[in-house]
This record gives sequence, structure tokens and C-alpha cells, in this order.
Amino acid sequence: MFSVRILGSSSATPAFQRFTSSQVISYNDRYYLIDCGEGTQMQLQKYRIKYNRIDGLFISHLHGDHILGTPGLLASLSIFDRKSPLPIYAPRGLKEILELIYKHSDTHLNYEIQFHALEDFEPGNVIFQTDRLEVSIIPLQHRIFCNGFLFREKNKRRKFNFYKARELGIPKKYFQLLKLGNDIQLENGKKIKAEEVLFPADPPLSYAYCSDTRYNEHYLSYLKDVSLLYHEATFLDELRNRAGDTGHSTAKEASLAAKRSNVSKLIIGHFSARYKDLNPLLEEAKIEFTNTDLALEGRKFDLRKDL
Amino acid sequence: MFSVRILGSSSATPAFQRFTSSQVISYNDRYYLIDCGEGTQMQLQKYRIKYNRIDGLFISHLHGDHILGTPGLLASLSIFDRKSPLPIYAPRGLKEILELIYKHSDTHLNYEIQFHALEDFEPGNVIFQTDRLEVSIIPLQHRIFCNGFLFREKNKRRKFNFYKARELGIPKKYFQLLKLGNDIQLENGKKIKAEEVLFPADPPLSYAYCSDTRYNEHYLSYLKDVSLLYHEATFLDELRNRAGDTGHSTAKEASLAAKRSNVSKLIIGHFSARYKDLNPLLEEAKIEFTNTDLALEGRKFDLRKDL
Repeated sequence: MFSVRILGSSSATPAFQRFTSSQVISYNDRYYLIDCGEGTQMQLQKYRIKYNRIDGLFISHLHGDHILGTPGLLASLSIFDRKSPLPIYAPRGLKEILELIYKHSDTHLNYEIQFHALEDFEPGNVIFQTDRLEVSIIPLQHRIFCNGFLFREKNKRRKFNFYKARELGIPKKYFQLLKLGNDIQLENGKKIKAEEVLFPADPPLSYAYCSDTRYNEHYLSYLKDVSLLYHEATFLDELRNRAGDTGHSTAKEASLAAKRSNVSKLIIGHFSARYKDLNPLLEEAKIEFTNTDLALEGRKFDLRKDL
Repeated sequence: MFSVRILGSSSATPAFQRFTSSQVISYNDRYYLIDCGEGTQMQLQKYRIKYNRIDGLFISHLHGDHILGTPGLLASLSIFDRKSPLPIYAPRGLKEILELIYKHSDTHLNYEIQFHALEDFEPGNVIFQTDRLEVSIIPLQHRIFCNGFLFREKNKRRKFNFYKARELGIPKKYFQLLKLGNDIQLENGKKIKAEEVLFPADPPLSYAYCSDTRYNEHYLSYLKDVSLLYHEATFLDELRNRAGDTGHSTAKEASLAAKRSNVSKLIIGHFSARYKDLNPLLEEAKIEFTNTDLALEGRKFDLRKDL
């Protein structure tokens, strides 16, 4: 399972029941949190996400609407008796903020925070990985230091075709070598390519998170062919100048990013509090890129099924 | 109008849709916020409290469940274009926390914060006042520096009884002196006491907020005869030792505080996340003090009507 659950879609301040930015990536029963606006822990409770399965926290930048849920969430993990270390990837200042808050409240977490400052990584390089998934950063252009994240499945192991192997009369002792992708030569001199006995693999799925950013060509190369793209769309295109001035994008720009990067599906979020009705933003994006949805609170996008 | 609206009733961490501590005092169309746990601004929106009428923020102590909504709320006030200064009464460390967060996010508020460190005041002294209301601090006993707040109406001006004054044949030129409470002597030598021409005043109403605290005799003197007392009741009395160890009170202790201080009504809150059903806490408190209610999210207690 590879899915994205939206916890907050509002820009800058909560509005119309919309919370500030936060999302949960779910991959094979483990969770990864991207951004952590105020109220994230209430949203996690609402959608019954199990706190103790959160295996990593990824913070794009230090504006309040992306981080202010962090000190409360980390303290709650401790109250609910987390023991395993939690990796956090964020701009360096977050560590300083957490330390100051916990100093004044005399709070001591039960578990270890493994803090990794994003200033120490190069865009495009893998910053975190499991045996199946890897995460790299996408350099964005906002008013302060800001990065998106690319979650990508590793190349999948191809399944072995037993029937084909038997049909070709391959003795069992060669199976392991073939499974690992090695070509072999049988004792009778016959050559067998691994290719012949391996099923084609599903292409690796990928999710890119781009918020907050002024639209520009530079980060598009990092988004090429991703399965699902979340792109901020703070404003309608009629406010394109304001978007540029404040380091944000319009719905139209989000759709251009999707189209030019050849992604399979686009979801837009980070909506300005000036918009109660979000349909005009969706309609605007769909002009350039039809397969677009609103990234609203509670919605879950399954990368295998919903693209 | 003098009322208290509960925004959060949960201790330490949100649970069962209960938010962490925050309350709004409403007095003659102005609002005063006590404590500001995570999500306070969402609760203010939910209950349609007008942000721009908040005239003061009072913070009891620096545990996260009482302050983590502050940086977001103050930033939102600025987004919604507040211009008037905001007085904040809080432990000194809050200023440091806000400054660090706003430094890293490069946030500049539109309005002035008038910060008053509670370390600089003596318990019992008035720290804030308007023409009708005054606020003083109640020294509590928690794991870290912590204060309650007493909101008390000033003595009310007594209304002038025109009919009585006319009946006594008092010329109009003396009315002002009498209204201000001065006794007079008429030209015919007759003495008139102000008392005779003034209606009795309503007794001043008062609200005391006591959270978080270990129960003790010391602060009871500050609560004497208050109209409405909010007292924390984190645990049932069967966990009295745990309450003592963690600097909290039980429902029974809250009711004893109410009874011994001769308050008119008690509301209890700051419930541990171990209690889904809160009725046992209410029942326990009612044994010693019948006029008790649960301080639950959204409930509003009117000090003139509901006592």
C-alpha cells in the first residue's frame, strides 16, 4: 500500500474548517508525516492514524503553518509511550525551537529524536530510505529556505516464473542465481538469460510534494514522470503577481508543472483563506491538466488504484 | 455580559475530540483569553469568537498543552489585520519562544505585543484592568511556575433614585454629589445621606481559573466567595497520589476547594486522556459540592444567569 492522506489544506491560517499543512504517506503499514501544521495530532486522531507507526517526519520549511503542530505531536508520542527513535528531516532551526520549548516546559521525551538538518543535503540525493522506499529533496523557491520531498519506491524485485523455468528444463540449483538476475549456462551448454524466467516488474511508484514555492522551471526536472504530484495552488491565476511576490503558485501554474513534468495525477492544496469555494481553483487547474483533484482534509489518494 | 466559554478541556494531549486548555472570558463584548493550547484558533473560529475583540491573553504556565496555540493565533491576528496592541500576561519564557519562532519564519506582526512577565507581579495584586474589570494572579503549585487568574468586576456604581430624591425635596444641583456617594446638607439645614437616594448595587461578579495545581490550602484564600470557580480535576481521587506527584488535583479535591472557599458554582476540567467517560469525575465532585458542572468544549457559563 502506498497512499497519501491529506490532514491540512489551508495556507497561513486555518479557515472554513481547513487545517494548515500536513499529510501522511502510508507505505506498507508504516507512516511518514510531511509537514506538521497546528492541529496535526488532532487530525491524526480523527483519521485513526496510529501514532506509534510514524517512522519519519519531513518538514519543508519553518513557516508556522507547516511546523506548529510539531512540539505537541512529539510530546504526545512520548505520553503514548513511544520508545523507538524518530528521524526528523527539517531545516536546522526546528531543533532550536523544539529545544527551547521543551526547556521552558521541563519536558523530556521517552524516545530519541534523530534530527537531520536539510541544510546538510544536496537536492536530488537520497536523504532517507527503507528497504522499499527512498526519499530525496526537491529544491523549492519560497521566501525562506524550503524543500519539497520525493518519495519513490525502489526498483522492485521481479517475480520468478517457475513454470517457464521447468519448461526450459532448468535444474533447481540454478533458480537462486536466476532470481537475482544472473544469466547462466546449463551443463548441456545451453545459455539461459534471467530475462527469460522473470516476470516484468511493476514500475516503481512515486509521490512528489511541492509546497511552498514560486513556480519556476528549475524544480520540474525533479518531478519528471512521478505518479502523483502534490503542488501548492495558493491563488487563482488572476493573483499571479501576488503569488510571485509571496513565493507561491497559482492553480494554473500547478497544472503547468504537472503537464510539463508528465506526471500521472495532480492534487492541489495550500489554499488561501480568501477562497471559501475551491472549485474555481480546481477548474482553473483542469484546463491544462485534466487529472487534477483537490487535496482536501481527510481525502486519501492511493498510488496504485487512484491514478 | 460576563461569561466563560470553554475551548479545551483535555490535559497534556488532545483525546476523544477534547482539545487542550483554553478559555474565553467575555465581558461587555470584549474577550480575554486564558491559556492557549494547540488548536485554540480553530476553536475560536468554530464558536465564532471575533479575533479582533480579544483584548488580552493570560497564560498560566509554559507546559505545551497551555501555550502551543499561541504562535499560530498571534500570527493569524496579524493576517486578519489586527492593528491594536495586544497585552499578554505570561511567564517570561513565552516571549523568548515566540521571538525564536518568528525569527526562523521571518514573521513580523502588524501590531504590537505588550508583554508582561508574570514573574514581575505579586500574587493578589491587580495586573490588568479596564474601567469595569480587574485581573489578579493566584499562586498555584505545579511542577513549574504556574499561576491562576482571578477576574473580578470592580465595585459597581449605584443607581440614583430620582423619585426618592424628589420626594425628599432635594434640589437638582445636589444630585451629582449624591450620585458620587457624598452626604450633603440642604440650605434648610436638613442632612441627606447618599445612602438614602442610591439603589443597592449588584454584588461584583468574579471568576477564578485554577489550572494546573496540586491541591493545597494556600491558594484557597484567593478564591473566597468567587461566583464561578474553574478548578482542574485531572484525576479521580483513587489516583490521588499520582495527582500529587504530577502537580495536579483530583475531582474530589476540586470540590473541596469550592466548598471551603464558599464559591457559588464550580466547573471542572483538564481531564486526563485516560478518561473517555467523564461522568465519574463529575459524580465524585458533586459529593462535596453539588453545584458542579463539566467544563467541556463549547460550553458557555454566564456568571449572571447560570450560577
